[in-house]
Amino acid sequence: MANPEATAEAAGEPDSPDAELRAQAAELFEDIPRAAEPPSGRPVTRAKVDLGAMLFFDPRMSVSGVFSCQSCHNIGIGGTDQLETSIGHGWQQGPRNSPTMLNAVFNAAQFWDGRAEDLAEQAKGPVQAGVEMNNTPENLIATLESMPGYVEAFKAAFPGEENPVTFDNFALAIEAFETTLVTPNSRFDQWLMGMDGAMTEQEKRGLAAYMDAGCSTCHAGVNFGGQEYYPFGLVEAPDPEVRPEGDVGRYQITQTEEDQYVFRAAPLRNVALTAPYFHSGQVWDLEEAVRIMANAQLGTELAEEQAQDITAFLGTLTGEQPQVIHPTLPVRTGSTPLPAPIQQDVGEGKAAD
Amino acid sequence: MANPEATAEAAGEPDSPDAELRAQAAELFEDIPRAAEPPSGRPVTRAKVDLGAMLFFDPRMSVSGVFSCQSCHNIGIGGTDQLETSIGHGWQQGPRNSPTMLNAVFNAAQFWDGRAEDLAEQAKGPVQAGVEMNNTPENLIATLESMPGYVEAFKAAFPGEENPVTFDNFALAIEAFETTLVTPNSRFDQWLMGMDGAMTEQEKRGLAAYMDAGCSTCHAGVNFGGQEYYPFGLVEAPDPEVRPEGDVGRYQITQTEEDQYVFRAAPLRNVALTAPYFHSGQVWDLEEAVRIMANAQLGTELAEEQAQDITAFLGTLTGEQPQVIHPTLPVRTGSTPLPAPIQQDVGEGKAAD
Repeated sequence: MANPEATAEAAGEPDSPDAELRAQAAELFEDIPRAAEPPSGRPVTRAKVDLGAMLFFDPRMSVSGVFSCQSCHNIGIGGTDQLETSIGHGWQQGPRNSPTMLNAVFNAAQFWDGRAEDLAEQAKGPVQAGVEMNNTPENLIATLESMPGYVEAFKAAFPGEENPVTFDNFALAIEAFETTLVTPNSRFDQWLMGMDGAMTEQEKRGLAAYMDAGCSTCHAGVNFGGQEYYPFGLVEAPDPEVRPEGDVGRYQITQTEEDQYVFRAAPLRNVALTAPYFHSGQVWDLEEAVRIMANAQLGTELAEEQAQDITAFLGTLTGEQPQVIHPTLPVRTGSTPLPAPIQQDVGEGKAAD
Repeated sequence: MANPEATAEAAGEPDSPDAELRAQAAELFEDIPRAAEPPSGRPVTRAKVDLGAMLFFDPRMSVSGVFSCQSCHNIGIGGTDQLETSIGHGWQQGPRNSPTMLNAVFNAAQFWDGRAEDLAEQAKGPVQAGVEMNNTPENLIATLESMPGYVEAFKAAFPGEENPVTFDNFALAIEAFETTLVTPNSRFDQWLMGMDGAMTEQEKRGLAAYMDAGCSTCHAGVNFGGQEYYPFGLVEAPDPEVRPEGDVGRYQITQTEEDQYVFRAAPLRNVALTAPYFHSGQVWDLEEAVRIMANAQLGTELAEEQAQDITAFLGTLTGEQPQVIHPTLPVRTGSTPLPAPIQQDVGEGKAAD
């Protein structure tokens, strides 16, 4: 977890004026490591990562040949599509805002409602969702098996397996690739490691306010969230435009009354890059999102300056964005399934975010 | 133009058994250089290329926020989308197959009908086409001007200009980036430079057949095409599924009778990667495409072996694919125009390929 640039500084500043704030922050947060392991403990190998990158960027994983993972989790836009909710197969609009895959390896579970245990389970969702990629595992495997370039890459990624080209391995390779998509060395992380000058005075006030107001109750840890479940509207129900009545969160999964409008606390790393906000994607302004959260979750009406300070602080959570060479994708063959004709009926599928 | 690996070999093989075939080929073809200049002579600078890469990969250049240049000219799939014809705004299907931008700098003109003089002029098409990105220059410029990251990048790319964020400069930056998307060092190029072993005997037979049958009359030069205009169906009209009656090619531009069904001879570099074929995208098999062309353009019924040999030869035109780091895109601001609502009417726009 150590950040070499910053650790050197930290050692040199025992009497830093930021010492107290930093000690308080160090109890709640962690810096992003440059390399991560999936919580599953499954090994991340170069061959798996390379295969996962190909799968992630390949639009032929969708039945239409139009959408890839990258379409909604754009590595150039903080891992999101910067749409209120994603547009998918047949120009259908999905029900929830596309969450970032950056640092998602640090989340306790995936999707807004945490219904996937890990990145591998998550990866199986959108590819099958009727409003997203609308594919089937069978057609996906037929597509992969038709291309020698993919067959070889699966063999290299899953050595010793007799039939490595499986839907499970597809998901595991994507998990391995996504595990590399971390954003270390944010200004907050530099500051946490001891570099006083990495944050401005306003940002430091914002950090103090973030902790004092109670934001860090839910949005803490290495990912500033992504760990626990809370009702959106703990104290006061948000405007129905922001929290649409029809989307009841975890209640859809558990059918338990106390899970009404319960979502996983959103991870806030790179949040300045990932507008629009909330599962509804109805708020484009980060400061407004901060106010709404203070109101809904804490029953607090933030002073203007306080909201500005917290927003400024959140900007320090933007880390180094992954630099990924766009993979050259395997060549199709005569047995590769053709993209589904555009005229086909657009199914009434389920969304996956 | 020199290929260092291959030139060394060439010097060493004066008595090569391939000498005659190579001499014949050298009259017609050229190897792909590792760096190209646009025919316009406009200088390609690092700052322009970097800006062009951002613009090329940024889906926010479309009015919906869904499609970028990369959507239909996928750098991982030979610069195409591997669809019969592209899917664009509102899930509309365009009228023509998406041509590759790889090595497009070597074409005499752009689009299937050559109606854009150069890459810069071409870049202005799809972004405005109703069935593609459906944007307006005004909304595009407003989008770019709203993001300091873009404003700085335009200033760096076009130093000394008072208002560098213009639609013209948008197009020039994309031209500069696309100028870098060349695929040198194909096996054919290695062979042309003197490496006898870079092509198999079958591929060499295919090359001989390609020249003898007359394919090289239209598909020659550095890009194996992309230079001149010919009627598709010079000798015999192709099946109307392959050459749809409603798409009359350059006639649409010139309104001249002799331009009926006239198209620019397709450049054949990387053709093994760019299925499906023809402006209609109705043929997925390269060997079938070869047969159709021999029939339509040369009035020749190719023997099975001959068609196979030519197809094998075309496979040697696959060069090194560009390795491009996916750019980190500028951060939106409160003044960035929002993506057009999905509910908006889908216009009756013109296609741009």
